[in-house]
Amino acid sequence: MQSLGRHILAEISGCSFDILNDMALVQEIMINAALEAGAEIREYVFHKFSPQGVSGVVVISESHLAIHTWPELGYAAVDIFTCGQRVNPWDACDYLAERFQATTVNAREIQRGILGEVPKQVINL
Amino acid sequence: MQSLGRHILAEISGCSFDILNDMALVQEIMINAALEAGAEIREYVFHKFSPQGVSGVVVISESHLAIHTWPELGYAAVDIFTCGQRVNPWDACDYLAERFQATTVNAREIQRGILGEVPKQVINL
Repeated sequence: MQSLGRHILAEISGCSFDILNDMALVQEIMINAALEAGAEIREYVFHKFSPQGVSGVVVISESHLAIHTWPELGYAAVDIFTCGQRVNPWDACDYLAERFQATTVNAREIQRGILGEVPKQVINL
Repeated sequence: MQSLGRHILAEISGCSFDILNDMALVQEIMINAALEAGAEIREYVFHKFSPQGVSGVVVISESHLAIHTWPELGYAAVDIFTCGQRVNPWDACDYLAERFQATTVNAREIQRGILGEVPKQVINL
């Protein structure tokens, strides 16, 4: 079914504590993941929590990437939401899993803005 | 099943063009939605597209809210991801639907970081 966007929700586990707790590195990896997928970066913002954990978002022309890390669990909750046909969100997902040194990735893709639920006549994908 | 977070994916339709295309207003509504749910705001960033559309994210202590609007469709794709028991993401969802003057909200809640998929012994919810 045709949709406006593809949204991957990825549960990334078995990652390196040190990577998930390093805000600058998480930011760099997330930005590179967006570029790896062929996305165009518009804005980004990251936040470091005490005693550990990083949250951050990269807004792209095609939607966004978001991450929340629990370094003490080796776990990151990642969203990769892309619109249009040019960008493949799975490229970003694969890149993230590799850079975080994950042992397990549990990811699902959800269609967003399914046509028929919004007026068809004005859609120009 | 116990999880680290609750993630609402909301397809919000039948909204006002003028509201969805006004970046300052969308930003204000998203920030207030986070506050309405009892969340603590950490960072936010919004972007206006040409000829129309707004993307933006509010990073909260409890995770994030994100939005992408298609004013020409009266449609917004919204994510409300919250961790912990103190914040109710549905409060934010209801608030957004009302402020965007939506006629239809198609929302589902997904559990993120399901315990058992990450080590239990170090989790302190």
